[in-house]
Amino acid sequence: MKKGNLIVISGPSGVGKGTVVKALMQRHDKLRFSVSATTRAIRPGEVDGVNYYYITKERFEQMIANDELLEHARYVDNYYGTPAAPVDRLLEEGYDVILEIEVQGALQVKQRRPEAVLIFIAAPSFDELARRLRGRGDTAEDQILQRLETAHTEYSAATSYDYVVVNDYVDEAVDEILAILTAERLKANKQTQILKEANEYAVSPNV
Amino acid sequence: MKKGNLIVISGPSGVGKGTVVKALMQRHDKLRFSVSATTRAIRPGEVDGVNYYYITKERFEQMIANDELLEHARYVDNYYGTPAAPVDRLLEEGYDVILEIEVQGALQVKQRRPEAVLIFIAAPSFDELARRLRGRGDTAEDQILQRLETAHTEYSAATSYDYVVVNDYVDEAVDEILAILTAERLKANKQTQILKEANEYAVSPNV
Repeated sequence: MKKGNLIVISGPSGVGKGTVVKALMQRHDKLRFSVSATTRAIRPGEVDGVNYYYITKERFEQMIANDELLEHARYVDNYYGTPAAPVDRLLEEGYDVILEIEVQGALQVKQRRPEAVLIFIAAPSFDELARRLRGRGDTAEDQILQRLETAHTEYSAATSYDYVVVNDYVDEAVDEILAILTAERLKANKQTQILKEANEYAVSPNV
Repeated sequence: MKKGNLIVISGPSGVGKGTVVKALMQRHDKLRFSVSATTRAIRPGEVDGVNYYYITKERFEQMIANDELLEHARYVDNYYGTPAAPVDRLLEEGYDVILEIEVQGALQVKQRRPEAVLIFIAAPSFDELARRLRGRGDTAEDQILQRLETAHTEYSAATSYDYVVVNDYVDEAVDEILAILTAERLKANKQTQILKEANEYAVSPNV
């Protein structure tokens, strides 16, 4: 069984990451979504192990201390993070595992797992990103400006990513991510079985 | 204009490289084939600049001395090699350029151009490679054994390649190579234009 790839997807607010990831999951059946852990309270309609793993602050801090998380962050009074164990289990089973996380978390994952594949979803242009954020019509202008400033920082971090996929049309972005997943499985260091078999083959005359 | 990728394809005798590359050229129109230079005499039916660039021994040795070749080798009394200039011109024009060359040449290219993408075409198994070589029915058994020994050496070198594509079905192998070419164009260090534009964008309120 060939191990799957750990895929990290990030991108600025408004770029349409959620839509891309959802469409991606529908077109690739050896793909699993990582579930994060959080210390915030479960909300009506949420399911433990589906939306999040809901754990205590003590347990979360223990996981940090034991290096059981691929990445974590604290927002206001709550922790959010990615437990390594369920991700590793899926990778061993041959699934590619998707983490949809912030830039800071992505860089933490890359430090712990240099083999992780980091994909940054960019807008066709920064103008278009601003248009998409304003087009929603549900966000105050000062918040939009703040998100665009944050996007600036995120784009700077994208140079540390492995790939940049432009989300102009969702289907094309998904095609491109699928091509990346295919290519990553063809990397020579992932094809060790076929090379090993060839090296061990004893050439003998046809009798 | 985004520069194209330099793609090097190698694989053992009998693996079906030629068929794969031919099918690949038919399915990708931004792809060009590199033409090698040689000092051997032109043969009936061959065309200068199509099959090879036919040049003198003196000119070839001058090209070696001036480092004008991406790779070269000497077989018996003749030189064979890849002139860099026509390849660079096509890359600048945005084409991906394919070099179908031996393992030794491929490693020379990688030394001169670390950004070159090396793809090794492998057989589904070494047994199958032997079967394909014998199945042609036009090669003596001692030559087949020699080719399989050479294949051993080639497979060992494949660990220095970037990707290994198994040629089980030609169409699938071509799909996989096309995925690699797509992924390589999405590498963050190839997407500098979109990241630069975002960094230079001045966030301003909507007035």
